[in-house]
Amino acid sequence: MNRPFIPLHLQPESEIPLYAQLRDQMRALVHSGELEPGDRIPASRELATQLRIHRTTVATAYAELESEGLIVGYVGRGTFIREPATQRQFSPPPREASGPLRWEALFADERAGDGLTRLLPEVPSDAIGFISAKPTEDLFPVDDVRSCANAVLKREGKKILQLGASDGYGPLKEVLLDILRVEGIAARDSQLLITDGCQQSLDLLAKAFLRPGDGVLVENPAYPGALSILTSARVRCLPAGVETSQARQRYSGLDLKVAEAVLEQNRVKLILVTPDFQNPTGATLPAAERQKLLELAARFKVPIVEDHIYARLRLRGNPVASLKAMDRNGLVIQIDSFSKVAFPGLRVGWCVGPERVIERLRLLKQASDLHTDQLAQATLAEFVRRGMLEQHLKRMIRIYRRRLEVLEKSMERHLPGGVEWSRVDGGMSVWITLPAGLDAGELLLHARERGVLFVPGRYFYFQEPQPNTLRLGFAGLDEQDIVRGLVTLGQVIESEMRKKQRGGARHTIEKPEETRQRVALI
Amino acid sequence: MNRPFIPLHLQPESEIPLYAQLRDQMRALVHSGELEPGDRIPASRELATQLRIHRTTVATAYAELESEGLIVGYVGRGTFIREPATQRQFSPPPREASGPLRWEALFADERAGDGLTRLLPEVPSDAIGFISAKPTEDLFPVDDVRSCANAVLKREGKKILQLGASDGYGPLKEVLLDILRVEGIAARDSQLLITDGCQQSLDLLAKAFLRPGDGVLVENPAYPGALSILTSARVRCLPAGVETSQARQRYSGLDLKVAEAVLEQNRVKLILVTPDFQNPTGATLPAAERQKLLELAARFKVPIVEDHIYARLRLRGNPVASLKAMDRNGLVIQIDSFSKVAFPGLRVGWCVGPERVIERLRLLKQASDLHTDQLAQATLAEFVRRGMLEQHLKRMIRIYRRRLEVLEKSMERHLPGGVEWSRVDGGMSVWITLPAGLDAGELLLHARERGVLFVPGRYFYFQEPQPNTLRLGFAGLDEQDIVRGLVTLGQVIESEMRKKQRGGARHTIEKPEETRQRVALI
Repeated sequence: MNRPFIPLHLQPESEIPLYAQLRDQMRALVHSGELEPGDRIPASRELATQLRIHRTTVATAYAELESEGLIVGYVGRGTFIREPATQRQFSPPPREASGPLRWEALFADERAGDGLTRLLPEVPSDAIGFISAKPTEDLFPVDDVRSCANAVLKREGKKILQLGASDGYGPLKEVLLDILRVEGIAARDSQLLITDGCQQSLDLLAKAFLRPGDGVLVENPAYPGALSILTSARVRCLPAGVETSQARQRYSGLDLKVAEAVLEQNRVKLILVTPDFQNPTGATLPAAERQKLLELAARFKVPIVEDHIYARLRLRGNPVASLKAMDRNGLVIQIDSFSKVAFPGLRVGWCVGPERVIERLRLLKQASDLHTDQLAQATLAEFVRRGMLEQHLKRMIRIYRRRLEVLEKSMERHLPGGVEWSRVDGGMSVWITLPAGLDAGELLLHARERGVLFVPGRYFYFQEPQPNTLRLGFAGLDEQDIVRGLVTLGQVIESEMRKKQRGGARHTIEKPEETRQRVALI
Repeated sequence: MNRPFIPLHLQPESEIPLYAQLRDQMRALVHSGELEPGDRIPASRELATQLRIHRTTVATAYAELESEGLIVGYVGRGTFIREPATQRQFSPPPREASGPLRWEALFADERAGDGLTRLLPEVPSDAIGFISAKPTEDLFPVDDVRSCANAVLKREGKKILQLGASDGYGPLKEVLLDILRVEGIAARDSQLLITDGCQQSLDLLAKAFLRPGDGVLVENPAYPGALSILTSARVRCLPAGVETSQARQRYSGLDLKVAEAVLEQNRVKLILVTPDFQNPTGATLPAAERQKLLELAARFKVPIVEDHIYARLRLRGNPVASLKAMDRNGLVIQIDSFSKVAFPGLRVGWCVGPERVIERLRLLKQASDLHTDQLAQATLAEFVRRGMLEQHLKRMIRIYRRRLEVLEKSMERHLPGGVEWSRVDGGMSVWITLPAGLDAGELLLHARERGVLFVPGRYFYFQEPQPNTLRLGFAGLDEQDIVRGLVTLGQVIESEMRKKQRGGARHTIEKPEETRQRVALI
């Protein structure tokens, strides 16, 4: 709960520094019970204004209280008095005391779990799951992969099984540089780093650039895996909305007006953006707006991290050049992988960027896990070299395009009036906005009872979650299931809308049971 | 250079807090040029004693100066005035200013490079390289691996190529739990996490447990990859020496007397230890001393991270139960992989530990790279299930044992008197101590001219490097090369000893040229 007022009495004339006075009084308030675990305390800026002291003084006091384990800050939520159990975290462990080790007290950062755990409803195996943004495994070219793995082990097995270079397996780097060239990016070998996938690329970028408190401009909503990394890096996520076509905006994608304001008002360390078929909204930033974003980045001298993972899944319309391809100032670091177009079980991705950034990331990669698995790298290289990737991608685009069309027809036909959705030209999902007042979390409960699943929008927001949004992933379902799923979904939404109009028993419904899944929400 | 005295005049009676006075005066000294980039400043404890103020006051001032980019601390080396170029790191970037982006100014931590870059001499391809602690690729069972990869892709290809569980591929976890059971560790599925190898296991453990400033008890010398991680986590590495058999100690391995003193005098967060065939010394801790170490850990309630990567490479003598197998208090987290006994190009390792630790590591793993490559996991599982690992390991042990024997005979015969070496019973290397006054770095220069390479001991120390030590890796060389290499090495050492006795031209020799290698020093 919020406390409107904390009784603090600082004495500027005292010998005791103000920060120490503040720290000691706050500590006393906790010990006396005036401040209780869970209580929210004012932001340092706010308290500094109230007390008419310098913000650094408050920040210093807070830093000490935090390192004592008395308070804890959550990105985007505020600073709170900590549970007593965790206060013991930073005091010396009781020696000779009996009882087993308390592991919780040893973890570096209890907040990590907060950022890391994204709870997901349990998925019954027979459900129609619009949950996923992963490629459908029934279409995996398993025999082709097998033939590639076989060939590379036969031809270069010793090299593959030996310890390798931290920047990546040479033959894979070569074919990727060719692909990049075709996509308008003339990169050298020293500008390309192979990683274990986009998730690791983001993790390395966070290690390379971000300190606690740094500002990062992020789309809101965004990919939960990116938010996990940013949360555990304890940075300030500065939101810019994502325009979707549903609202008949001038353009879709990152809201540049907001982005510019954020850049003007904050010291921003990085811009993280997915210009093509953004996850979860499916929005794509047009070329002219990409140019503007690049100009903003150049003006404020802030690097852009471009997540390019969905870009090859363009199902219709003309491709737009990537930010990296348009970048004339060396400001863009592009992260990418074939996980969305081929098979995510092989953990391979890459980063392209300025040489000195790539060299820094390479050192961090080496310290993180030496190098990426070489059987996966060699197999993928062979898969590309033989033209199998191109062939597979063409097939997937044909199939996914058809699924998208079926989905659009079904939404048109089966979703009640007042439900809006984004028009997407690629990727793996559409974004649905229910009439105001409906809660996608509650909807999921009823849909699940009837065998249909989706991801409520709130999993993707780090600020101001819109409870009436949801993501429908269409790539993993065949056309029949898409139609059947939409029929059910339409009925459930209609029923919820009727209840809502009757002022119905909305609040009697139990919250959906959530379980930690061992598979990430992607 | 060291400055014996810094002119500081604090006024305890001032309204300005002492820490702010200290900070401002230090800043002024830098700006006036009294303190210059590269100057070393006293440790906070030392300065606090000199100025008769509390250490926290000095630490607070230093923290602020550091975040301003004026000073920089290096683990084990001290705190220094920073180069002016890097001072700009933390001031807002000049807007509208011309010129390209200064990436260096954006990196989160310049010290990272320091911990991450371990420079190694360039390796001529025709040299006899006693450099490596990796298995020799000529002995890789490539055809067996190929047949396993083939079989698993045929049988479970769709599952392998699909996104997987963050805790690991089920079939691999099963065979590993069987192996662990045989080794005396009765672990459940929830106590086992698959990683990309021991390097990643260490990285995850650092993320889970370590905050800047935490104390970690580490063997000195130790595996450089572990030191890289600890350095970039900015922890205090608290050294305990490693006894080797050469000095006719009561026992070999971690010095328990020192370890106990370190535990008594410091708040230690973790103990990191390699009880079997420690890299680089090859030392193995006997069973009785393992028991004592476990008792110490229980007494001080400090978890032990046991690096078990070399343990299966026992070439003679009886195996000693692992710390994890002896652990009755749930204090040990064991990290392991087959990279030393099979093939490191497949990046797979694992951690076994208490369930709540493994769950925390799993969340961090998921945020780091979703999960480990599944083709590698499935292939390894099949390799184990078919008995191929056991068969391969037997063969490697036979071959390495013979190589070790040849090495020992060659050292006996060709190394001059005064050179000592550790007696090892397994692993991949022996540790050599030259007569005092000889420098292994200089020796390497001459040895390299004659086509023989090794790693000077200083790469493995984080404190008090012993310049007269070196590591000879024997596993990667055939018997003939071992003999030839030792003949040359003996001659070079003898020649250096003679020069030394003559007070020779030691200082006219150029330092060996070092280059960053894209392959990690392991």
